[in-house]
Amino acid sequence: MTHKIAILGASGYTGAELVRLIATHPSMEIVALSADRKAGLEMAAVFPHLRHLELPTLCKIDEIDFAQVELCFCALPHATSQKVIKALPETVKVVDLSADFRLRDPEEYAKWYGGAHDAVALQQEAVYGLTEFYRDEIRGARLVAGTGCNAATGQFVLRPLIAAGVIDFDHIILDLKCAVSGAGRSLKENLLHAELSEGYSAYAVGGTHRHLGEFDQEFSAVAGREVRIQFTPHLLPANRGILATAYVHGSAEEVYATLARAYAAEPFIEVLPFGETPNVKHVRASNFCHIGVVGDRIEGRTIVVAVLDNLTKGSSGQAIQNANLMLGEEETAGLMLAPVFP
Amino acid sequence: MTHKIAILGASGYTGAELVRLIATHPSMEIVALSADRKAGLEMAAVFPHLRHLELPTLCKIDEIDFAQVELCFCALPHATSQKVIKALPETVKVVDLSADFRLRDPEEYAKWYGGAHDAVALQQEAVYGLTEFYRDEIRGARLVAGTGCNAATGQFVLRPLIAAGVIDFDHIILDLKCAVSGAGRSLKENLLHAELSEGYSAYAVGGTHRHLGEFDQEFSAVAGREVRIQFTPHLLPANRGILATAYVHGSAEEVYATLARAYAAEPFIEVLPFGETPNVKHVRASNFCHIGVVGDRIEGRTIVVAVLDNLTKGSSGQAIQNANLMLGEEETAGLMLAPVFP
Amino acid sequence: MTHKIAILGASGYTGAELVRLIATHPSMEIVALSADRKAGLEMAAVFPHLRHLELPTLCKIDEIDFAQVELCFCALPHATSQKVIKALPETVKVVDLSADFRLRDPEEYAKWYGGAHDAVALQQEAVYGLTEFYRDEIRGARLVAGTGCNAATGQFVLRPLIAAGVIDFDHIILDLKCAVSGAGRSLKENLLHAELSEGYSAYAVGGTHRHLGEFDQEFSAVAGREVRIQFTPHLLPANRGILATAYVHGSAEEVYATLARAYAAEPFIEVLPFGETPNVKHVRASNFCHIGVVGDRIEGRTIVVAVLDNLTKGSSGQAIQNANLMLGEEETAGLMLAPVFP
Amino acid sequence: MTHKIAILGASGYTGAELVRLIATHPSMEIVALSADRKAGLEMAAVFPHLRHLELPTLCKIDEIDFAQVELCFCALPHATSQKVIKALPETVKVVDLSADFRLRDPEEYAKWYGGAHDAVALQQEAVYGLTEFYRDEIRGARLVAGTGCNAATGQFVLRPLIAAGVIDFDHIILDLKCAVSGAGRSLKENLLHAELSEGYSAYAVGGTHRHLGEFDQEFSAVAGREVRIQFTPHLLPANRGILATAYVHGSAEEVYATLARAYAAEPFIEVLPFGETPNVKHVRASNFCHIGVVGDRIEGRTIVVAVLDNLTKGSSGQAIQNANLMLGEEETAGLMLAPVFP
Repeated sequence: MTHKIAILGASGYTGAELVRLIATHPSMEIVALSADRKAGLEMAAVFPHLRHLELPTLCKIDEIDFAQVELCFCALPHATSQKVIKALPETVKVVDLSADFRLRDPEEYAKWYGGAHDAVALQQEAVYGLTEFYRDEIRGARLVAGTGCNAATGQFVLRPLIAAGVIDFDHIILDLKCAVSGAGRSLKENLLHAELSEGYSAYAVGGTHRHLGEFDQEFSAVAGREVRIQFTPHLLPANRGILATAYVHGSAEEVYATLARAYAAEPFIEVLPFGETPNVKHVRASNFCHIGVVGDRIEGRTIVVAVLDNLTKGSSGQAIQNANLMLGEEETAGLMLAPVFP
Repeated sequence: MTHKIAILGASGYTGAELVRLIATHPSMEIVALSADRKAGLEMAAVFPHLRHLELPTLCKIDEIDFAQVELCFCALPHATSQKVIKALPETVKVVDLSADFRLRDPEEYAKWYGGAHDAVALQQEAVYGLTEFYRDEIRGARLVAGTGCNAATGQFVLRPLIAAGVIDFDHIILDLKCAVSGAGRSLKENLLHAELSEGYSAYAVGGTHRHLGEFDQEFSAVAGREVRIQFTPHLLPANRGILATAYVHGSAEEVYATLARAYAAEPFIEVLPFGETPNVKHVRASNFCHIGVVGDRIEGRTIVVAVLDNLTKGSSGQAIQNANLMLGEEETAGLMLAPVFP
Repeated sequence: MTHKIAILGASGYTGAELVRLIATHPSMEIVALSADRKAGLEMAAVFPHLRHLELPTLCKIDEIDFAQVELCFCALPHATSQKVIKALPETVKVVDLSADFRLRDPEEYAKWYGGAHDAVALQQEAVYGLTEFYRDEIRGARLVAGTGCNAATGQFVLRPLIAAGVIDFDHIILDLKCAVSGAGRSLKENLLHAELSEGYSAYAVGGTHRHLGEFDQEFSAVAGREVRIQFTPHLLPANRGILATAYVHGSAEEVYATLARAYAAEPFIEVLPFGETPNVKHVRASNFCHIGVVGDRIEGRTIVVAVLDNLTKGSSGQAIQNANLMLGEEETAGLMLAPVFP
Repeated sequence: MTHKIAILGASGYTGAELVRLIATHPSMEIVALSADRKAGLEMAAVFPHLRHLELPTLCKIDEIDFAQVELCFCALPHATSQKVIKALPETVKVVDLSADFRLRDPEEYAKWYGGAHDAVALQQEAVYGLTEFYRDEIRGARLVAGTGCNAATGQFVLRPLIAAGVIDFDHIILDLKCAVSGAGRSLKENLLHAELSEGYSAYAVGGTHRHLGEFDQEFSAVAGREVRIQFTPHLLPANRGILATAYVHGSAEEVYATLARAYAAEPFIEVLPFGETPNVKHVRASNFCHIGVVGDRIEGRTIVVAVLDNLTKGSSGQAIQNANLMLGEEETAGLMLAPVFP
């Protein structure tokens, strides 16, 4: 059976990545693509790499006949997303890739995103889209909130460790490096090739990055007490990929055993042999996440390194993984594309 | 039906690209992977990006039971390839990715490759693997010689123009830019990141690049007279992709019409609207080739620009396209992966 | 003696490059820096790499006391430049880095830049700033027009050959590759790291690039007849540097001898041994230009390759070279910085 | 007065960087360049970017007449360096860029470098070359040991904080990112453009990097007790530059005040305004180091970020800074070149 799919906000990188993945998905068919300012254009004019595909012309959202749409990926900007989703018919399943439904607490939302939520009821209903940990809820959900790409990476490292209580909750540092596509197709000086290439810098230093809202919510829930981590993202001179280096207090062997156990049956998460660490290049353009564990020379300190592709496993691949569950398909359908190397 | 596949020389980039593509191919199964100096290792140790796949352990060629192999991709170094293929059982179909069987004339081979051919009979038998122009012969072939990646790009531009006689055969210039994976996984100073990144240079200037042997052979055959083009390759500070800029004498409209007609039914070759030129980034990691035509301000001069991914359409993707034909499968099987952007 | 210098338009890449070079210049002192939209900011806020320098605060042009300024570099956008320079006191020498005064013929200007010139008298007075060929005029000039960076590169290759008549004027092709800083600090989608890195494309194909106006003007003047070349620029995934590959009809030995003779005494232009070609990385961040000559396998066809740094020799370094002459200083003062490699 | 300089090991990146810097140094003259395997070649053959300079032909060390040499930079591989320096006449001052004389304790040397030291007396005599902290000793030294590039970066951040006792010595984490030229011009697979570009990985994870020997020695000496930090280097897809992110326990205001005070008079170290962090691109190809301090959202935790160019301030620039002192010259002579951006 083929599921009829709409993508709202198809002119951004996550929109293009959804189209790329659906192009070889066995049971999804794109019936509508919206892009407000580019309505009327063909997708090939916006993304020439998709030229070979037969795709609907870009349109405005209100031109879409949602009666024929079974599931809608919403890749709109933050804040816009909640308004649009609120207005969709209840018959349409939704995977939202924005930040709008990630935080369940309206106060936390206001704190991190600077204003009241426009769709509080939906906010309560939305399921957090970290597939590996919310699989059952996602299967039955109408609305799934895709996670932040950094938030996903950090949780793949830390969530099982916090759940198992094998690390000190008060000494968790996440030094994360994200490639530039995480910032979207936005025209900013620091995203220019001339400024980014051969450059490297931290940003949102000191605990101001919005993905901390997700870490706080999820880690505290898992721990059963408030957990606050330190998190410093850096902008990498590369296009795709996140590498997170986590510094924790805990036994390396226990940390390793906990992660190995947690992910033993997971199709997309590979725990490397003890003592090895991954390279972000080895998951490029794929839905895989590689995790490595090394004990520090200082007894009781452990380093965990994880990598994933922010546009795939960190965003659009995750979205399709969730959609597969919501549609009753195999979770891995269309997502087993091997990483592109070199 | 599943075809049992061996890959000889699996530890190079074209070998890895074959594995990447076969990983999601509907009817190929890898039963043997050879790598002389890395025999005994798992593929994941050599190419960690393939870690999620269940693959045979790397072995030596003589450890392979070719009785169970239906088709063999040979991604060995030039000169080695002919020795190995000569020794394979006749029951095994072979797609060779080396240069060994591209030139049919032993003298031309000796001229460009510096020595006598070791398997002259096979050299005569081999079919030149430019699928779009040798489709019928490839279908029935036992041995197909994959083309040079530069040679493929240049031919996609020039072959129909020479065949149609719409350009001056004595004024053809091909200024080509190739990314670094075209040089393979070889340890050379000029391939180091520190030397290549932010660098750019021509090489094999003046008509000494071996792929000229292919151009000479093919263009002369098509033209029915000797054709000699000028060809200058440049090394691009990028990992994948070839962009060829061809300068020809001929009417832009005629050139465009000829190319549009030649490729109208081709699944992998996209001729852009007249006046547009392609970007190599838009075919990355895919089997597609984009071609654009522009008339120069000087009457009667035309510029044609073509792009493809040297590892895919220029090498391993082409090899699978040919193998599909040889195995009686759909030509496009496993090859419709959309380009990866950004 | 120290010369008091103003830089108008200091917030762009050529402005920053001027400051970088003047920072270690033995006899120039910056007394004013203008940047219209960033007036009031310190230079370190706009270009943190200049943080260690004591520099004037950015101001508006009309805040500058030009009575104290001996020479003014004008790095303003095209069209703005002519208006500003027209209004400057006659006591101030000017090196203009825009395109406004490169073309002497008002009709040619209108054709390439799309409108009437606003300062026709100055247009006639301005000396074309290709130092190696206009040295004497530059020494006595009040206004020097910096050349286009592509135009400089092409002329270093072709000008002596046309002057000597050793090549066929009707078969000149210039295939040029320019790094992204040539496009300035402008917010365009195709200049984003995510779009440019691993990308490669031609632009202004077919003879529409404005630097052709300079080629037409200069080559025709040198030849004593109309000369029209073919010129195709490509955008390189790199930050600095231009590599030009010229295809000419003429004897390689004569071409080589002509270039070697022309540049034998030049401090910044290095002609490589016959048969060698240069790498753009070897002139990075310097005022040097390397040129190589190779004969093609086709008798009578020659390839010449030249490299320079578009921001230095192609723009701000050239500007300082000209200013040195105008100020009666050693032509090489402050410009002997060795290239940065790797 | 001009000082006669020899560079041993001139065919590596630090050797080339020395030549680049000395090219515009006001009082140094290169009289000998050695390169064992490339003896007999001109420097331009090994490093074409130095083509414009008149330099001695590369020779073997024993061909150098050290009687005419006042100071010798030794850029040889680790272990080789100590043998060579031991054999030099005592009249020659030496700045060693290898690791051989960084550790004063022979046991520590053996532990980190895997063998007995070959010149223990010299090891005791050598002064540690972190100029800003050993200025007086360096002035009178015969042999100065250049620091590790990572070790320099980490010490610029941590040394004043440990000396002042404003941070907890038992909770210091240094997450460091180093560009690829730090690995030298060595032919290794992971240094190839195709493998490094768009890649990113940690290495020497868990406290095995040799520069930890320097941290242990220096920090313990400063603290007056044993100090052991956690240190994880990462390989950055870039050519030059180190960015170190330090996580410390201590008041951000105190940390900032301590660093601002420590470096107030330093010509090469710039402490940014409180709350700002630096970009490695802003010190490229220069001898500057930028440092920024931010308080974390968790009370009592502070993040300090520092950047420098590993080849300049981290190695060859530092070496010249030390040589200036040893030769009685201005410390900044030849080193005020502004960073290259973009």
